[in-house]
Amino acid sequence: MNLILLEPHEVSSDGRAALRDGRAVHIRTVLGAAVGDRLRVGVVDGPLGEATVTGLEGDVVALECRLTGDVPRRGPIDLVLAVPRPKVLRRLWAQLAAMGVHRIVLTNAERVERPYFDTHFLDPAVVRPLLLEGLQQARDTQVPLVSVHRRFRVLVEDDLDTLTDATRRVVLHPGDGAALEQVASAWRGERVCVAIGPEGGWNAFELELLRGRGFVAADLGPRTLRTDTACVAVLAVLHAALRLSPASR
Amino acid sequence: MNLILLEPHEVSSDGRAALRDGRAVHIRTVLGAAVGDRLRVGVVDGPLGEATVTGLEGDVVALECRLTGDVPRRGPIDLVLAVPRPKVLRRLWAQLAAMGVHRIVLTNAERVERPYFDTHFLDPAVVRPLLLEGLQQARDTQVPLVSVHRRFRVLVEDDLDTLTDATRRVVLHPGDGAALEQVASAWRGERVCVAIGPEGGWNAFELELLRGRGFVAADLGPRTLRTDTACVAVLAVLHAALRLSPASR
Repeated sequence: MNLILLEPHEVSSDGRAALRDGRAVHIRTVLGAAVGDRLRVGVVDGPLGEATVTGLEGDVVALECRLTGDVPRRGPIDLVLAVPRPKVLRRLWAQLAAMGVHRIVLTNAERVERPYFDTHFLDPAVVRPLLLEGLQQARDTQVPLVSVHRRFRVLVEDDLDTLTDATRRVVLHPGDGAALEQVASAWRGERVCVAIGPEGGWNAFELELLRGRGFVAADLGPRTLRTDTACVAVLAVLHAALRLSPASR
Repeated sequence: MNLILLEPHEVSSDGRAALRDGRAVHIRTVLGAAVGDRLRVGVVDGPLGEATVTGLEGDVVALECRLTGDVPRRGPIDLVLAVPRPKVLRRLWAQLAAMGVHRIVLTNAERVERPYFDTHFLDPAVVRPLLLEGLQQARDTQVPLVSVHRRFRVLVEDDLDTLTDATRRVVLHPGDGAALEQVASAWRGERVCVAIGPEGGWNAFELELLRGRGFVAADLGPRTLRTDTACVAVLAVLHAALRLSPASR
């Protein structure tokens, strides 16, 4: 944890908070904090700030917060992702939050196996702590927006335009189209919606539907990556392209 | 598994192989293969090819292999990595192999905790199957070369020049120097050695030692990532920069 995240209701109007859960354990044991020490804190979906440890009694850590920092800006990338295996999905949540994805749109696809939708790793109560873990790692407060869509066609044709305001859309499709870094090299400063398919890929119908809605195809080279590795790789390359200064091109 | 990897000693001179382990289970249950079906295969550190299933008796899968494909080329990146937490290290092996790292040089650093060296996830017998898992995912046969170095200074001053022939060296260091994608944008077609520190970062001495040996500092932006996420992100951005065609700059 490089930042202690607090829910808005946990902080009183005069900035006091009392923690008892894993964050309290982390502050005591990993950070080894003593009364008077200062910690980086942030309010979920709110500003960054600093807190002073004012008490360590029993298992309670008392904090006095000054939330005078910036509210982090939302990230420039929205992700449409075919639901992966539960084991992979579990690993993904914190990483997607750490990489600053603004919106995560989970969808069905032909090659998504039906039981994948039954996992508790799609349960908001399970997902949220994993997202907060990623934000605390990356020192961000903006919780990614998450929605799950069982009907791919309805998602792409009817819902996507209201879910994302990205000015660019790209679909990862191995061996088809240009390299992602080339496609995105002209997108500096824009917002991007990227679609990543199941491990077996999008089928022809799905790909056509996405193309019909403005998604250009791109790939990351000849290696087939597991979904979690692919997501991090794609987000890293897109982030690099979006911030790449003209001088380096 | 997008490729079934065979050890050289498992394939007879006339191309026959008999599998009994997890690969046999995978061929039967995940691929649902029948006699006569063809599979992608490869020989560890050798060529790619194709195999025909010639028998499915008991728990044995019999294959007849035609290993007439290319031997994949070694990847362009060598990685120097401060030993991460065992849990993170376990997750990393397959991902580093899938991303095509040529050599993995694990090292000590001030902020590496000593017990990290005691994990069995540094044991070659445990590491190799994880590396092969990543290669089978990415359809590669080239097993990354792995070495573990407890003395950072000896590694950097004495051993590194014989371990890597990379023509470019870069050290990830947050907030210092230019963005990685800018630094690497002029390195198309070259070989790169990249050094990634512990989660707390390299200390000043370590950084100075690396700089003295030709490592330029670069970062991936303001977000602090977990080591496994950072490794995948760094490798993806470097791969993109190394293959970026001049036309897209």
